Amino acid sequence: MSVFIAFEGGEGVGKTTQIGLLADWLRGAGRTVRVTFEPGDSPLGAHIRRLLLDPDSAEVSPRAEALLYAADRAHHVETVILPALAAGEVVVTDRYVDSTLAYQGAGRDLPGAERINAWATNGLVPHLTVLLDLDPAVGLARARRRAALDRLEGASLDFHRAVRAAFLRLAEADPARYLVLDAGAPPEALAQRIQEVVGGLL
Amino acid sequence: MSVFIAFEGGEGVGKTTQIGLLADWLRGAGRTVRVTFEPGDSPLGAHIRRLLLDPDSAEVSPRAEALLYAADRAHHVETVILPALAAGEVVVTDRYVDSTLAYQGAGRDLPGAERINAWATNGLVPHLTVLLDLDPAVGLARARRRAALDRLEGASLDFHRAVRAAFLRLAEADPARYLVLDAGAPPEALAQRIQEVVGGLL
Repeated sequence: MSVFIAFEGGEGVGKTTQIGLLADWLRGAGRTVRVTFEPGDSPLGAHIRRLLLDPDSAEVSPRAEALLYAADRAHHVETVILPALAAGEVVVTDRYVDSTLAYQGAGRDLPGAERINAWATNGLVPHLTVLLDLDPAVGLARARRRAALDRLEGASLDFHRAVRAAFLRLAEADPARYLVLDAGAPPEALAQRIQEVVGGLL
Repeated sequence: MSVFIAFEGGEGVGKTTQIGLLADWLRGAGRTVRVTFEPGDSPLGAHIRRLLLDPDSAEVSPRAEALLYAADRAHHVETVILPALAAGEVVVTDRYVDSTLAYQGAGRDLPGAERINAWATNGLVPHLTVLLDLDPAVGLARARRRAALDRLEGASLDFHRAVRAAFLRLAEADPARYLVLDAGAPPEALAQRIQEVVGGLL
């Protein structure tokens, strides 16, 4: 059975680590796993990602930014996610629609982004969304140790607090789809809890 | 008074010529004119235009294509058209929303593009849309003499016939906004008719 799982959360919450642990576990259980990410996991997406996240690129107006993310997502769904699901694979994506809703909605007053994304994805919703929740002061410190910050990571702490609150509101509004975890817990404990829930889906 | 005018129509119908003649006439009458075009008349737009129209660029899925055009348009409205209108200029654009609706709607079954574009433009509609209507067999022959064909110009004659029909339907649905002209008429005669109608708007 094909299953579609999204990981969401702010910067430095450990999505990459948990996705890697989940993929290893699934492969160990004999599943074919497609690990992917947004924005940018396609040839077109890589171009769009550069436009969106390169701090040196041209200024992007807010609606244009939301539509570029949606274009990347539409292409990702049509050329990566749907074909893998059709082949019976487990698809695990690092960020999906809720990242856009949280980042765009938190920072700027842009009503309507939800409808744009529903259209971009043709209504494809994950079976499970894992939200790794963490105080952004902690997450950003982790992210800073890791690498240079891109445009979004370089925004203010207040912005990242609003993003966190927006993610938690999205999870509250759809509890059946969401698994909200305290990303400050040890990675092994988080991985085990995620495996229990994903195991129940398979 | 600021006025917003869009020129629409297929390939080779003479939009560039008529826009140039209109701009000259307006400037002769003492107006400040901003001539612009879609897709691509901004630094971000130039990047998007390359993604969309370069025959050698990555494959673009249909929804992604529609959203990229919408992103270009949102940026164009926010950074070019609205500032010029706010400064009291006459804005003349080579293609706007109706081009997307005609090209996307004619070629592919993509309901919802109209809402996406209403969102991208924040509802900005031209005071006047001039549709230069021509048999695509004639228009494409003109366009081929002019330059190498881009991705859209290289599509089949049937596609371009559907685009023409879609433009005419859009004009029928909103006759107060549209001026439909037979683009086979002499350029000077077309220019004079356009000047009469634009003169009535000023």
